[in-house]
Amino acid sequence: MYVYGRNVARELLKKNQKVLKIILQEGFEDKEIISLVEKNHLKVEMKSKREIDHLVNGVHQGIILSIPEYSYQKLDDVLKKDPNFLVLLDHLEDPHNLGAIIRTCEAAGVDGIIMPKDRQVPVNATVMKTSVGTLDNVNMVMVSNLSQTIERLKDCGFWIVGTALEDSVDYRTIDYSGKIALVIGNEAKGISHVVRNSCDYIAKIPMYGKTNSLNASVAAGIMIYEIIRNRK
Amino acid sequence: MYVYGRNVARELLKKNQKVLKIILQEGFEDKEIISLVEKNHLKVEMKSKREIDHLVNGVHQGIILSIPEYSYQKLDDVLKKDPNFLVLLDHLEDPHNLGAIIRTCEAAGVDGIIMPKDRQVPVNATVMKTSVGTLDNVNMVMVSNLSQTIERLKDCGFWIVGTALEDSVDYRTIDYSGKIALVIGNEAKGISHVVRNSCDYIAKIPMYGKTNSLNASVAAGIMIYEIIRNRK
Repeated sequence: MYVYGRNVARELLKKNQKVLKIILQEGFEDKEIISLVEKNHLKVEMKSKREIDHLVNGVHQGIILSIPEYSYQKLDDVLKKDPNFLVLLDHLEDPHNLGAIIRTCEAAGVDGIIMPKDRQVPVNATVMKTSVGTLDNVNMVMVSNLSQTIERLKDCGFWIVGTALEDSVDYRTIDYSGKIALVIGNEAKGISHVVRNSCDYIAKIPMYGKTNSLNASVAAGIMIYEIIRNRK
Repeated sequence: MYVYGRNVARELLKKNQKVLKIILQEGFEDKEIISLVEKNHLKVEMKSKREIDHLVNGVHQGIILSIPEYSYQKLDDVLKKDPNFLVLLDHLEDPHNLGAIIRTCEAAGVDGIIMPKDRQVPVNATVMKTSVGTLDNVNMVMVSNLSQTIERLKDCGFWIVGTALEDSVDYRTIDYSGKIALVIGNEAKGISHVVRNSCDYIAKIPMYGKTNSLNASVAAGIMIYEIIRNRK
């Protein structure tokens, strides 16, 4: 996986995180980064600005790092640890949201985050950045079928809680004392029809404005802290 | 102010929002956008990719729109409406956070958002995008001195609530029934020393992970919904 930019480079190199390869733009001059690269004895490739522009879609500032792909945990391994609070992502698109949700889950002590393989932003460079170092302390699981996973969680005694505005109850009135799997819906479409039908509770965060819309990671934060309100 | 990208362009042009000028890259070919531009009889400038690259720092996709600067409200005008819940931003840096906070404030019915003029991300193109149409329904105020504004709010009967981890009380134990001004601190540094000294309450959102950190807009969302919990 490629990550890029001078801040990210400095951070990873200082933390001694595993870097497979460094790609520098011809004429790259940041002395601190060059000395970190030399200190870590890393493999360096020099490329023209034009070549680097084609490798990544963003402001690379003349430096790209190739790092190992993020490795997800297995659902079985997470279930073996007897979790009682899981967060399920129903096809999130925005890496900033995923990063912020990972951060909230880590802070709140959520036992695992489960997300589908397709049509879902994976753990990428932006997610790594916005989750500010919390990724290592959270159990991230990728599954091929979210609905089947929900059925399996139900068999394990989980109550499935989704959020939506229609046919829902005030989020403050639900009993969260059991094992809870909270589903966070897609930014634009919300929770998918089939997942919604599997939910035991549909919670509504009351809204008083004209727009009736919260950012997905903010809604997740409000729900997650409501769920742990009386548990910890 | 410049905004850019095809999605943003399409959105603004369809909404008939005031556009001062359109800058297109030579060879620009999106037929839907070109027909919207013609329908709105807008002034168009053609420029080379190189020239456009110099105007904005991001993925412009060959189109820039020049739109009027956002116009803030006056503190006096907001105070005249007898507000009882305000949010103060203590030098936020990230436009995604500002956009998400504006969205939460609109949904929660917050009476106004006050932010300092310096060292604070203003309402820019990214903020407009991430606040997804809620900006028009929120009172945004820019002040030159946040500490003086806080003193003025205290004179108007406001209780000032900040968030921090040290020397703080659980956010669920504070009495939010009066007029509340909630201060959201900077993403990295938190609430500044001088603002902290003006706070009547310092609230702590309990955390159970290793990192003890929430995204600023997530923390704001949790606090805002706690404050309105028993008010509406």
